[in-house]
Amino acid sequence: MGDSPPENDGDTGRNFLDEASRLVDLARELQESATSHISRTWNEEQALRQRALSLDSDLRKLQSAFDSASRNRALDPKLAEKIDEELYRARCVVSDGDVASLLPSKVHGRFLKMFLGPVNVRATRKEVQLKVKEEYNNYRDRTAFLFLLFPSILLLLRSWIWDGCFPALPVQLYQAWLLFLYTCLALRENILRVNGSDIRPWWIYHHYCAMLMALVSLSWEIKGQPDCTQKQRGVQLFLAWAMMQGVAMLLQNRYQRQRLYTRIALGKAKRMDVVWGETAGVEGQLWLLYPILFILQGFEAFVGMLLLRIALVGVVSEWQVIFCGILLILMAVGNFVNTVQTLMAKSRVKARMKKTRSKLDLDQCSSVTSPRS
Amino acid sequence: MGDSPPENDGDTGRNFLDEASRLVDLARELQESATSHISRTWNEEQALRQRALSLDSDLRKLQSAFDSASRNRALDPKLAEKIDEELYRARCVVSDGDVASLLPSKVHGRFLKMFLGPVNVRATRKEVQLKVKEEYNNYRDRTAFLFLLFPSILLLLRSWIWDGCFPALPVQLYQAWLLFLYTCLALRENILRVNGSDIRPWWIYHHYCAMLMALVSLSWEIKGQPDCTQKQRGVQLFLAWAMMQGVAMLLQNRYQRQRLYTRIALGKAKRMDVVWGETAGVEGQLWLLYPILFILQGFEAFVGMLLLRIALVGVVSEWQVIFCGILLILMAVGNFVNTVQTLMAKSRVKARMKKTRSKLDLDQCSSVTSPRS
Repeated sequence: MGDSPPENDGDTGRNFLDEASRLVDLARELQESATSHISRTWNEEQALRQRALSLDSDLRKLQSAFDSASRNRALDPKLAEKIDEELYRARCVVSDGDVASLLPSKVHGRFLKMFLGPVNVRATRKEVQLKVKEEYNNYRDRTAFLFLLFPSILLLLRSWIWDGCFPALPVQLYQAWLLFLYTCLALRENILRVNGSDIRPWWIYHHYCAMLMALVSLSWEIKGQPDCTQKQRGVQLFLAWAMMQGVAMLLQNRYQRQRLYTRIALGKAKRMDVVWGETAGVEGQLWLLYPILFILQGFEAFVGMLLLRIALVGVVSEWQVIFCGILLILMAVGNFVNTVQTLMAKSRVKARMKKTRSKLDLDQCSSVTSPRS
Repeated sequence: MGDSPPENDGDTGRNFLDEASRLVDLARELQESATSHISRTWNEEQALRQRALSLDSDLRKLQSAFDSASRNRALDPKLAEKIDEELYRARCVVSDGDVASLLPSKVHGRFLKMFLGPVNVRATRKEVQLKVKEEYNNYRDRTAFLFLLFPSILLLLRSWIWDGCFPALPVQLYQAWLLFLYTCLALRENILRVNGSDIRPWWIYHHYCAMLMALVSLSWEIKGQPDCTQKQRGVQLFLAWAMMQGVAMLLQNRYQRQRLYTRIALGKAKRMDVVWGETAGVEGQLWLLYPILFILQGFEAFVGMLLLRIALVGVVSEWQVIFCGILLILMAVGNFVNTVQTLMAKSRVKARMKKTRSKLDLDQCSSVTSPRS
C-alpha cells in the first residue's frame, strides 16, 4: 500500500484502486458482522430477560405463599427453615450478579432522567460497574480533601488578611464549588444505584438538599459592612462546620474503604456497596466514628438554629437565611434518623445472621445486609 | 405453586420445598447462561473492535498516500476520481452506522467525566441512540416554550404589579432555572456527541458560557432601591433578549425538525444529526431564519456592551456586571463566527456535492455533510 516506489502512473493508480476496493469490501463485511452481532446479542438478551422476569415473579409468588403459611404456623419448623434457606439462595442469585443486571432497574431515578434524558447508564459487565464504584471512592477522597481545604483557607484569610470580614467573591466561589460538587455527587450516586449499589436513598436526598442550600446561599448577600462580624456569623459557623465535615469525611473514607475491602474478602459485601458513614460496623472503630457523626449532626442543627435566630432577631432579614436555617435542621434530623436506623438494622441483621444464616455460603450472596424488597 | 389447598402440613411443606429447589436450579441455570452470554458478547465485541480499528487505520494510511499522490498530480484524473469514490464509500461505512459504534469515541468529553465519572453513555443499538435524540428534541421544544414564558411573565409583572422594580426572588428563581437548563443541555449535547451526533463543539461551549453566566448572575445583587430603573436596566434588557431567544428557538425547533425528517427521508442526513440553528439549509426558510439569528446575535452583543457601560460609568460597580457583559459579547461573537462558518461550509459542501457526489448512493452515507477528520 504505497510502500513500493511508484513505477508509473497507471500502476500506482491501479494499486490504489485495488487497495481501496479491498477496503470497501472489508468495510462491508465488517458492517454485516457488526449488525448481525448487535441484533443477535439483543435477541439473546431479550430471551434471558424474559427468563429472569418469569423467575423473579415465580420467586415472589412462592415467597409470599410461604410467608403466609409460616405466619399461620402451618409448617414443620425444620422444613420451614430448609425452605427459607432455599428461597434465600434463589433470591441471592436473582438479586446479585449477572441475573440482577437482566432485571429492570427499579431505581432509574427521575433525577438522572431530568439531567441526562433517557440514556442508559447501567453497565452490563461487573468490571465496568466496579470501575465506576472505584472512581466514585477516589472522587470522594479528593473531594473530602478540598472540603477541608477551602473553608480552612477562607477562615484563615479572614483573620489574617481580611480583618474579620469576608469579601463576597471568595465565599461565592466556594458556594459555587459546593453546588457543583453536590450536583456531581448526586448524579454519581444515582448512577451507582442504577448499577446495583445499595446506598440508602436518604444520602442522595441529603445531597439534593445540599444542592438547594448551595444554590440559595449563592443568592444570599454576604458583604455586611458595617457590623459584619454579626451579619457574617452564619457564614463563619457554616465554614467551621464544613471543616469538621471535611475531617470526618477523610476519616470515614479511609476507614470505610478498608472495611469494604475486608468485607469483600470475607464475602460479606457486594463490591458495589457504598459504605457511607452511617453503615460503619467494625466494633472498634465504630465507637470512634459514630460519636463524630452524631456531634457533626448536632453542630449542623446548631448552625441551622443560629441562622434562624439571626433572621428572627432581625440582624439579617433575608429569606435565604431562614431557608438555609430550616434546611440545615432538616438535614441534621434526617442524618440522625438515618444513622440510628442503620445502627438498628445492623444489630437486627447481626442477630438474624447468628440465628439462621451461619451455615449458608455467604460468598454466594450478601443481600442479607441489603434487603431489596 | 400453592394453588391447590394444603391437605396436610407435610405435603404443603414438601411442595414448597420442591418448588423452592426447582427455582434455585432455574436461577443457577439462568445465572450460568447470563454469565456466558455476557462474556461471549464481550469477546465477540472485542474481536469486531479489533477489525474496525485495523480497517480504520488502513483506510487512513491509504487516504493520506492517495492525497499526497493527488497533490503531486501523479494520477490519471479518471482513475483518481474512481479511487476517491471508493475511499468515500469505505469512509461512509466506517464513520456511520454500526461500525462507527465499535470505534472508540473521540469525543468522550471531560465535561461528562467531570459530572458523571467514567460511566458509558454510548448506546450500541441505533434505536436507543435515536430515542435519545428524539427526547433531546422534545426537551428543546418544552424548553423553548419556558424560555419564552418565564421572561415574559417577569416583564409583565414588573410593569403591572411591581411598579417598575423587580424583586430579587423571582429573578433569582429564573436565573437558577437557567443554570439548571443550561447544565442539562450541556450534558445532553455531550451525550449526543458521544452517540455520534455531529453537533458543532461551539454550541456546547456556548452552553458552558451560559451556565457560567447564570451562576454569576445568581450572585449578582439585583434589588436596587433607590433608582432601580437604571440599576435594573441590564436585567430588563437581558429578559427582553431571552424572550426573543425563546421565539427564535421555537421557530428553529419546528423548522429544523421538519427539515431533519425531510433530509432523513432523502437520505441526506444521519438521524443523529442535531440541526441547530446554524445548520439550517432549505433555501426559502433560510432567508427568514438567518436574519433572525444575526439580529439576535447583534442584540446579545448590544446587551453585553450595555452592561459594560453600566459598570464603567459607575451606576453598578459589581464585578459580576463586567463579567456578564464580557461573556455576552464573547458568546455573540462566537455565535456569529460559527453561523458564518456553517453557512460557508454549507456552500462548499453543496459545490462539492454538485461536482463529484451526484452519482453516489447517498442513502448509504451522509458524512459529506459532517466530515469527521
